[in-house]
Amino acid sequence: MVAINCDMGEAFSIYRCGDDEGLMPYITLANVACGFHASDPMVMADTVALAKQHGVRVGAHPSLPDRQGFGRREMKMDRDELTACVIYQVGALSGFLQAQGMALNHIKPHGSLYGMAARDEQVAEAVADAAEVFGVPLMGMAGTVHEQVWGSREAGFIAEYYADLDYRDDGSLIITRQHAAFDPAESAKGAVRAVTEGVATSVGGKEIPVRADCVCVHSDTPNAVELAKAVNEALAPYLD
Amino acid sequence: MVAINCDMGEAFSIYRCGDDEGLMPYITLANVACGFHASDPMVMADTVALAKQHGVRVGAHPSLPDRQGFGRREMKMDRDELTACVIYQVGALSGFLQAQGMALNHIKPHGSLYGMAARDEQVAEAVADAAEVFGVPLMGMAGTVHEQVWGSREAGFIAEYYADLDYRDDGSLIITRQHAAFDPAESAKGAVRAVTEGVATSVGGKEIPVRADCVCVHSDTPNAVELAKAVNEALAPYLD
Amino acid sequence: MVAINCDMGEAFSIYRCGDDEGLMPYITLANVACGFHASDPMVMADTVALAKQHGVRVGAHPSLPDRQGFGRREMKMDRDELTACVIYQVGALSGFLQAQGMALNHIKPHGSLYGMAARDEQVAEAVADAAEVFGVPLMGMAGTVHEQVWGSREAGFIAEYYADLDYRDDGSLIITRQHAAFDPAESAKGAVRAVTEGVATSVGGKEIPVRADCVCVHSDTPNAVELAKAVNEALAPYLD
Amino acid sequence: MVAINCDMGEAFSIYRCGDDEGLMPYITLANVACGFHASDPMVMADTVALAKQHGVRVGAHPSLPDRQGFGRREMKMDRDELTACVIYQVGALSGFLQAQGMALNHIKPHGSLYGMAARDEQVAEAVADAAEVFGVPLMGMAGTVHEQVWGSREAGFIAEYYADLDYRDDGSLIITRQHAAFDPAESAKGAVRAVTEGVATSVGGKEIPVRADCVCVHSDTPNAVELAKAVNEALAPYLD
Repeated sequence: MVAINCDMGEAFSIYRCGDDEGLMPYITLANVACGFHASDPMVMADTVALAKQHGVRVGAHPSLPDRQGFGRREMKMDRDELTACVIYQVGALSGFLQAQGMALNHIKPHGSLYGMAARDEQVAEAVADAAEVFGVPLMGMAGTVHEQVWGSREAGFIAEYYADLDYRDDGSLIITRQHAAFDPAESAKGAVRAVTEGVATSVGGKEIPVRADCVCVHSDTPNAVELAKAVNEALAPYLD
Repeated sequence: MVAINCDMGEAFSIYRCGDDEGLMPYITLANVACGFHASDPMVMADTVALAKQHGVRVGAHPSLPDRQGFGRREMKMDRDELTACVIYQVGALSGFLQAQGMALNHIKPHGSLYGMAARDEQVAEAVADAAEVFGVPLMGMAGTVHEQVWGSREAGFIAEYYADLDYRDDGSLIITRQHAAFDPAESAKGAVRAVTEGVATSVGGKEIPVRADCVCVHSDTPNAVELAKAVNEALAPYLD
Repeated sequence: MVAINCDMGEAFSIYRCGDDEGLMPYITLANVACGFHASDPMVMADTVALAKQHGVRVGAHPSLPDRQGFGRREMKMDRDELTACVIYQVGALSGFLQAQGMALNHIKPHGSLYGMAARDEQVAEAVADAAEVFGVPLMGMAGTVHEQVWGSREAGFIAEYYADLDYRDDGSLIITRQHAAFDPAESAKGAVRAVTEGVATSVGGKEIPVRADCVCVHSDTPNAVELAKAVNEALAPYLD
Repeated sequence: MVAINCDMGEAFSIYRCGDDEGLMPYITLANVACGFHASDPMVMADTVALAKQHGVRVGAHPSLPDRQGFGRREMKMDRDELTACVIYQVGALSGFLQAQGMALNHIKPHGSLYGMAARDEQVAEAVADAAEVFGVPLMGMAGTVHEQVWGSREAGFIAEYYADLDYRDDGSLIITRQHAAFDPAESAKGAVRAVTEGVATSVGGKEIPVRADCVCVHSDTPNAVELAKAVNEALAPYLD
């Protein structure tokens, strides 16, 4: 069984970001921003309500405290303070879930917090300490420090495969600030293969092993809705 | 049975505010700031831990989004957005309570949010909508719009008497930005009288009716700890 | 002689707002946001550079400190503090102008600060005190408290006519959060009439007097660029 | 000729930080915080007015955008964006100087920005680009990357000696978050020696070369005023 996740609720103030309404029908897990890199209380309330309406489960998408940099700036913080930052954000989101009678499903760190946790054990542990407060698994990428740390914790680890990003020959992701359009049919085919065979084709044409407990699509890919729809339809037999 | 409450955790970054450690032994309810007028994740984590250590129950002390003005600036917000702001803050605090295995006890709005809810039904309703999500009572002042609104809601209302502020002849509070020192013995005597007889003496020397489900002391009164100690000792027979 | 002004640089972080590049060729004055309701240092640097490239003069567009509410929330502040908030923002913008060898042209308050100054003398005076530090005129709407206050100050007052908003029979503006599309030809015709005859037609079909030292277009009107182009072409003979 | 500098105006909202009024009589240069790690518009207005009253020249004390961490968190930013952040802050301060008829004297980066510029050429260059906009020298520590970069720029470099911190045998500073009290007489003697002979004694008892164009005292040293007074009196013959 597999899920489709997407970062949601990354609007702020009068600013919009991504077509959340268009995407919600095609995903099963929404990673909802918590106000530190994007979102605000009104956006969070609306996003959780939208997820509920579509039967989409909700996880938290916490970030380093960096609204000006959209959570993409690496930042040095003490381990305890980082844990506190994640607890604060996940707690805040939990309030909106409680308002809708929903349960928190998981936590997926955003941007630099995700990347730092993938390389730095102390950061991964800090995030895991917060996740254990809420008793939910952490979502991340296999083959990283965060997989090791989070996978060894009680709350558990959900590995995600990226349907709209390229992989290098060594299995690492090519992260881009401006996502390019992807061919929906190719993305969908890749997602099915990742889920059923556990392999992907790298940019160098190599077969690389991947772990896909869930498949991630991004809302800022130019053809995001079309791509999500194709992935959703292709994965329909495997969705939980 | 009565409680003694105090606003706590109003530090921020490197800045301190009030002698929380000195006061905690003499109170039974801590209203903990949630990051919108004061506090930050690390301060919240530490304050909740300190409260637990002293067996003090914790309520949320949410504010308008106004860190620069310490939540003392009146601000016009849509009712839905105000509710969302309160849910966000109370949810965030609930995360730290969950980390300590504690339950949320109540909500007491801060500064202008408290004052606006005392006069404006829409503001009081917005706050009540948030409180009902968490199923806890709201703390405020009797004889106000917020007493009417909050008292009529399922979650309920806790009326507080101020041991370190003066009352006008009409029963309204004289709110000061810089609190003056109060004679601890007088404050303690006044608190006992408020609790046992339901009366206070106004600045004009008039007997006025007060409702004291709990007694509030402020951490920024110059002799705050001494005063809290005196109030605590005098109220000892009535504390729950 | 008349100018065409537009609020510019209201992007923030990764968020865009308005087609500044498309509009810049058709305006003569840019009111650049200063970070309190929108914008950030990088956006300000880029916006001032863009204005310079198009020979557009730059004014400051300061706001109440309210990024979450896009400066649209009314807020009570002490007069001195409000003056300080405006000096801070205008000073910050002046740094970017200095970097480009440009001079500050004027100040036009944003959102609720504009509206509050139109009705409240203390707010208008607070803003004027800041403007006098920089020795530049304030832009606003005729027939308001801010016209009286600002017009009586040494720095002076620039009256603006709105090419893309409707006027009531009493001469007041109908402010909308979501601007509707306007017929560019009608807007252009109205602008010329306002400039040359000093009259406008209200929504009730009444002729009302207007004062148009400059004409304002908004970047968030759906057909903003087309409208600005039409206004610019129609006003060409009168532009300074 | 030598100056005595101190970081000033690091209060925020209702929070105080350091005895600015007590220290101002004993310094000749105030490095005024600009709102990114500490301070706010009202504090800046008041601090510049206080400096003027005491005939103290004012420099800017800009920071990384990190109020929650008091500018002490290292953060990765693009060079252009960092320059823009410094221009924004220095411009904002310049507004308050203009209000008082004062000129900007210098720029001294705060906290992690100071430390990062001491080690990283790109950071030092980014800060220098901002300083050149305002045509003022940068203040820092000799023997660092920022001395090399800033010293080679037109605006120039002012080397500071720390009267209230210890030096290691290799000449590097021992930075502490909580500053310990220093013996005022010893600090004063050390300052005179640094200024007149260009040497200091390290914690290991070694004579190390230092460059002291100015002497820095901190407002958060426990006996800061007493220490500043002693340094001021001892340096009196050398003050410009």
